[in-house]
Amino acid sequence: MKQAVHKLEISTRGQGLYEFTATINEWVAGQKMQTGLLTVFCRHTSASLLIQENADPTVRRDIKAYFDRLAPEDGPYEHNYEGLDDMPAHLKTALTQVQLSIPVMNGSLVLGTWQGIYLFEHRVHPHRRGIVLHLIGD
Amino acid sequence: MKQAVHKLEISTRGQGLYEFTATINEWVAGQKMQTGLLTVFCRHTSASLLIQENADPTVRRDIKAYFDRLAPEDGPYEHNYEGLDDMPAHLKTALTQVQLSIPVMNGSLVLGTWQGIYLFEHRVHPHRRGIVLHLIGD
Amino acid sequence: MKQAVHKLEISTRGQGLYEFTATINEWVAGQKMQTGLLTVFCRHTSASLLIQENADPTVRRDIKAYFDRLAPEDGPYEHNYEGLDDMPAHLKTALTQVQLSIPVMNGSLVLGTWQGIYLFEHRVHPHRRGIVLHLIGD
Repeated sequence: MKQAVHKLEISTRGQGLYEFTATINEWVAGQKMQTGLLTVFCRHTSASLLIQENADPTVRRDIKAYFDRLAPEDGPYEHNYEGLDDMPAHLKTALTQVQLSIPVMNGSLVLGTWQGIYLFEHRVHPHRRGIVLHLIGD
Repeated sequence: MKQAVHKLEISTRGQGLYEFTATINEWVAGQKMQTGLLTVFCRHTSASLLIQENADPTVRRDIKAYFDRLAPEDGPYEHNYEGLDDMPAHLKTALTQVQLSIPVMNGSLVLGTWQGIYLFEHRVHPHRRGIVLHLIGD
Repeated sequence: MKQAVHKLEISTRGQGLYEFTATINEWVAGQKMQTGLLTVFCRHTSASLLIQENADPTVRRDIKAYFDRLAPEDGPYEHNYEGLDDMPAHLKTALTQVQLSIPVMNGSLVLGTWQGIYLFEHRVHPHRRGIVLHLIGD
């Protein structure tokens, strides 16, 4: 049994879903583990992780628009001095998650056919988002 | 230290919560590990996992009804050619999760007295949902 | 490779966010693992876990107020005999999560600068909430 850890950064250019499944798959493949557990961790409180459909781009647009309606910029927030997108960003992060764990079988993640791994950026301005990958197995 | 993986399928007959705690408990017990970490992974983007109260069935009915109100079929969605329940299914999946990890102590999951593990089916028509169990420990 | 498990209880005094990052950090440090994966598990269906900003207290107040609006006490619930806060508590738990996994690198959790770990209590009356920590690594 062994472990591997890896830090990576994702540059975002405004709100939306940024897929990085390929980056993760490549790193996992390089670890040469047959069976294991991959954990993806996002080190932020205004960006989150989401596994969603990676086929039709309208799904991602609808997801973004939906969360904008669910946690609107004009809500009755106390915390607003970092901008109108600040508190909605915290709420969208709370409603999704900052951590995903995915089993590895036969050397690959067990993602379903339509599942892609996304960073969900909730801030309007560009950011560099820190992600940690942890893999344990053999 | 060792690992075990297992694939299973759950047949659903429309939207709602399908408990499969007993199936998981039985598989975990068969692995004869005293201490470990179980991960449950759902390989879909229109069905999700939920740990919720397994005592009073009204809790499950209220949960289903609540998510139907929170992500209604008549929302302003672009993505709708797979049916009115399609985009709400993606949103309900995003609002819950497709992965759960639960520690094992003394050979059993550390679930609380009232916690059951559910597949949350968000599509109207029957489906076969693929689940992967991963256990690591000793 | 080794594992460690630990049970702890958090006493809550009504609804809100209770930070326990320091308690977790101290326990993790005591395990003397350089690399690993920590899992935090909440054994309840009316309290949940959240990683959120631990700097400005207005963020926590806004999060609490937002979830009170999103899952209000006066919703059309069937399940209400344990009090008006009962069904909203289940819904808020479903919208957040009862499990978090966080990688350990160089002996410490890889939490971001502003990330704190919170128990999110959804019931009005005081409770003792059972939490399980599981750490695997070396």
